[in-house]
Amino acid sequence: MTEISTLGEFGLIRHLTENIKIKNESTLKGVGDDAAVLSFKDKATLVTTDLLLEGIHFDLTYVPLKHLGYKSAVVNFSDIYAMNGQPKQITVSLGVSKRFSVEDLDDFYEGLRLACEIYGVDIVGGDTSASLTGFCISITCIGEAEKEQIVYRKGAQVNDLICVSGDLGAAYMGLQLLEREKTIFAGEKDFTPDFAGKEYLLERQLKPEARKDIIRQLKENQLLPTSMMDISDGLSSELLHICKDSGVGCAVYEERIPIDYQTAMMAEQFNMNLTTVALNGGEDYELLFTLPLDLHDQAEQLEGVKIIGHICDASLGSCLITRDGTQIALKAQGWNSLEDNNL
Amino acid sequence: MTEISTLGEFGLIRHLTENIKIKNESTLKGVGDDAAVLSFKDKATLVTTDLLLEGIHFDLTYVPLKHLGYKSAVVNFSDIYAMNGQPKQITVSLGVSKRFSVEDLDDFYEGLRLACEIYGVDIVGGDTSASLTGFCISITCIGEAEKEQIVYRKGAQVNDLICVSGDLGAAYMGLQLLEREKTIFAGEKDFTPDFAGKEYLLERQLKPEARKDIIRQLKENQLLPTSMMDISDGLSSELLHICKDSGVGCAVYEERIPIDYQTAMMAEQFNMNLTTVALNGGEDYELLFTLPLDLHDQAEQLEGVKIIGHICDASLGSCLITRDGTQIALKAQGWNSLEDNNL
Repeated sequence: MTEISTLGEFGLIRHLTENIKIKNESTLKGVGDDAAVLSFKDKATLVTTDLLLEGIHFDLTYVPLKHLGYKSAVVNFSDIYAMNGQPKQITVSLGVSKRFSVEDLDDFYEGLRLACEIYGVDIVGGDTSASLTGFCISITCIGEAEKEQIVYRKGAQVNDLICVSGDLGAAYMGLQLLEREKTIFAGEKDFTPDFAGKEYLLERQLKPEARKDIIRQLKENQLLPTSMMDISDGLSSELLHICKDSGVGCAVYEERIPIDYQTAMMAEQFNMNLTTVALNGGEDYELLFTLPLDLHDQAEQLEGVKIIGHICDASLGSCLITRDGTQIALKAQGWNSLEDNNL
Repeated sequence: MTEISTLGEFGLIRHLTENIKIKNESTLKGVGDDAAVLSFKDKATLVTTDLLLEGIHFDLTYVPLKHLGYKSAVVNFSDIYAMNGQPKQITVSLGVSKRFSVEDLDDFYEGLRLACEIYGVDIVGGDTSASLTGFCISITCIGEAEKEQIVYRKGAQVNDLICVSGDLGAAYMGLQLLEREKTIFAGEKDFTPDFAGKEYLLERQLKPEARKDIIRQLKENQLLPTSMMDISDGLSSELLHICKDSGVGCAVYEERIPIDYQTAMMAEQFNMNLTTVALNGGEDYELLFTLPLDLHDQAEQLEGVKIIGHICDASLGSCLITRDGTQIALKAQGWNSLEDNNL
């Protein structure tokens, strides 16, 4: 184990960034000056940022640092895809607590680099500092998009189809599972919980992917959504954002919400309402988008995409239609670090 | 006092950002979607980021939140100017501890907005989260520059003049002063220390400015530095960066280093070596740049700029030439949060 203080700030940054190879034409200068220099020519520049704090967003007792590095990058890429853009660069700022070793940061960076490799993104800068308390991660992602191809939250129209990629609720059930095992094995040193048959849930929680493939499919099929978001706080919360920004309402069919078998099994075990889990679980990083009704047939052909409902007039509100036909108003109950129960 | 939990995450973000007016043509979409949308046309995009952590980078016992907001923005602008660019947008991520009220964040944002107003920068996004421990600030600044006008650290040539704006060491002495008063008055509730005659030092520490004016002067006089950096970690450290990246050495004259009268008085009181303070103090946010020797006369005309030495062959090393003509090798002793004494 190498103590970070043996390298110092500049030594550490050099150690972590020295082998970075620039992949994108738009990166003119990466790490190593007062600022990174990028060039997107006639394309628009997209910018998104996320702050992840130990004890709030992640628990290092069960989150491996390599996975955390991977996830920290991917959640930012997801925001760029949600604009119908391509992520191209990230800056990485870390606040590092005393108990961290150089090897710990190497693990974190290994995950970060792997994500950047897979998604074609350059690490172009950052800041590394001591932290008096927990591990603190701030990542900013820069992407590009053709101006006329950018998809905002505000464009949904009455009668549009509501589409969602992948399945929902699995990451949340993965978190519940990890939290339960942590409680059971608290205090024991070498705990090896049995996660057999629940691998998908853990993967969704610990190593999520961003839906680059959906953006590619949309492009290949020349489909331009009228609105789009990524699902980080739960389907309900994101649907309400789209409805509010677009000045519309929506109807979503409970039976159409995509849910994996493992998620359903786990919700049963935990005695949780499966629909609530799928609507409010959060951290799915799937894409939620709307398409004009006349594209129904093409929408149905999209691989890994499900039509779950439609946009309606604002006066009709935003509703879930249950299996027995009851309408229930959607509520944003997604995870929120600033609510009473968390602060 | 309003508790943050009464607003929730989205309510808080809305409260803090609802009256933001976009000033720049390059900002197509600010706060309120998955990512901000910017457009710099044929100009290059510059990106820099800074992470500021309570207890490491600032002490809330004597740093007013409004000043902290101002400073957090300005230190990022400074990095963009140091590339010979113009800051245009920032994203602001905050980790907020439980003891913070909405009014505290209003104060912080007031400083942030004031800085953005003065420097012509748009707030285009961010992230607000609970923090289990201290206040955590991550700001990313995006700027623009004509590609052929960007100034890197690596371009210094043998015989170039070394120029520095403003004066050095004042922010560091301001910090020493604040720390001393904090120690003296520890425990007393209404302490009103006497800072008469030391206002400049406090201002340099608590409310620094970025040298937009120097960048404007350089442009007006059609002077393009061969290399440039802002001085955040101390003159010595930054000079060594330029020399290393440019593959050159340097000679700096002790008697030419610009120092304010209040800095000198305070160093005397604290029994500190004044040159050490000026070389290694840090947080000056002045600009350090090099100009070709044949521009000597124009360099001398620049207001608020002093020529402090020249670039020489790498084999001659990087030296300070003292008042009595002795050569001393420059060492980077600037503040470093990851060194042993800080962690």
